[in-house]
Amino acid sequence: MFEMKQVTIIGTGLLGASLALALRDRGYTGRIVGVGRREKTLQMARDLGCFDGLTTSTAEALAEGRELPGDEGHMAVLAAPLGHFEEIFTKVAAADDPGLIITDVGSTKASVCAMAARHLPDASRFVGSHPMAGSEQQGPTAAEIGLFFGKPCVVTPTGQTDTYAVRQVDLLWSLIGMRLVKMSPEEHDQSVALISHLPHAVAALLVNLTDSNALDVASTGFADTTRIAAGDPTLWFDIFDNNKPAVLESLDKMVGAIQQFRMILESGDEAEMITLLLDAKHTRDRWEDRR
Amino acid sequence: MFEMKQVTIIGTGLLGASLALALRDRGYTGRIVGVGRREKTLQMARDLGCFDGLTTSTAEALAEGRELPGDEGHMAVLAAPLGHFEEIFTKVAAADDPGLIITDVGSTKASVCAMAARHLPDASRFVGSHPMAGSEQQGPTAAEIGLFFGKPCVVTPTGQTDTYAVRQVDLLWSLIGMRLVKMSPEEHDQSVALISHLPHAVAALLVNLTDSNALDVASTGFADTTRIAAGDPTLWFDIFDNNKPAVLESLDKMVGAIQQFRMILESGDEAEMITLLLDAKHTRDRWEDRR
Repeated sequence: MFEMKQVTIIGTGLLGASLALALRDRGYTGRIVGVGRREKTLQMARDLGCFDGLTTSTAEALAEGRELPGDEGHMAVLAAPLGHFEEIFTKVAAADDPGLIITDVGSTKASVCAMAARHLPDASRFVGSHPMAGSEQQGPTAAEIGLFFGKPCVVTPTGQTDTYAVRQVDLLWSLIGMRLVKMSPEEHDQSVALISHLPHAVAALLVNLTDSNALDVASTGFADTTRIAAGDPTLWFDIFDNNKPAVLESLDKMVGAIQQFRMILESGDEAEMITLLLDAKHTRDRWEDRR
Repeated sequence: MFEMKQVTIIGTGLLGASLALALRDRGYTGRIVGVGRREKTLQMARDLGCFDGLTTSTAEALAEGRELPGDEGHMAVLAAPLGHFEEIFTKVAAADDPGLIITDVGSTKASVCAMAARHLPDASRFVGSHPMAGSEQQGPTAAEIGLFFGKPCVVTPTGQTDTYAVRQVDLLWSLIGMRLVKMSPEEHDQSVALISHLPHAVAALLVNLTDSNALDVASTGFADTTRIAAGDPTLWFDIFDNNKPAVLESLDKMVGAIQQFRMILESGDEAEMITLLLDAKHTRDRWEDRR
């Protein structure tokens, strides 16, 4: 059972606010406190009606959780952009207590786990998470109750992670309807490089290669393929930068794959081209059927 | 005014059947005749209730159009996969008459215009078209009345094309709510290489680069970026093959773009990376607002 008496969500943007909405909707009866950097964002989060408290002070929010009556622990969820994580870990470390379990929603895991180990007095109570949900939209006004529902959530405990902490983090995501996937931080980073970071880079580059003639005739196929290129550039710089080795490797693989495709096309080898396209179709169709 | 007394749609799959549905829906009162290769497809097309006639014989369908009472002309629309175009042009050429205007829905234009010039006794009555609509679905059962509505349609007349023929083909697509874009066949081919053929190749390669771990955590972003990879491999071989020079050029551009992205990421140049991502976001946002 999910036993936390308070969930402190640090970052009340799209992900943090959607998490609060979903927890409330799924019957979580503990306190939900949001920490935001700007009064304006906090006001928008307040309008959602799902936070019991909203503050700009991480220390204050965590102190409230610690001081709540009851023996249960409390949980902090880092739901801010990756670029703010160092600063947030410093604040969490300063307000840490043995009853606190810490997780996050960051798009990379090895670098985040390393930050946790660097900053926290007891990193065994940190459990890396990556709920695979998002949107090119941002901010609390884009929040959705169902954003996480039915989607995969990667949880990346290591040999050092406390098993009770892992269990509570698992329960947090299960409670809002996510499908748990366990991986090491490194496996996670390689996987998301392939299914998220590389596709994002490629989408942005596809857009940048177009000219006005081409855009004038672009339609639904282009719209779908490049939708994610509308994402926030600063967020995405941080993601690429936090997963540099795996992203560089995936870019190299893509260059190799394009060069092979080019060779097949130039040679006019119909059988080989159809095999390549059929492999992709089969993999894509099977994946679509499963999800 | 669209004056054709019959529209013969050669190919009654997704595009041909959707065209027939849309023409009927928008009040076209002439005959709509479908030509299909297989009885099974014709039966599915018949069930849509929008064809006045369905046959496996191009010669018969075109003879019916020619022999209808009235001075108006009739029109043939090639709506079959590109791989069947040579054969269809041969049949159309054999049944051609001075009242026939010919157009197509093929995804490439220079190669199709060349086929028309090679086969037709009078290629001035051929007007290349490419309605920018489609789906990874196929066949008459996937047909939709609104498939073409509001989308761009490229029409590619040359200096030799008869102006009345161009006007009637423009009116065909306008009638079903498409936005006309005029380009030369070569401009078209370069544009669609960038916004359709390259994205298709890239989507297939992104899928082929994944492994089971990666697919296990893939979510909405991956779903959108790779949707088109579920398209029909044989259709797509023909498209790539018919637009080989422009596709090869676009693949080379993509390799260059990825290598540049790689360099920026490796150097950690935040300003340059953000500029690149912001360019993509601005272009994508402006395009989305316009369409």
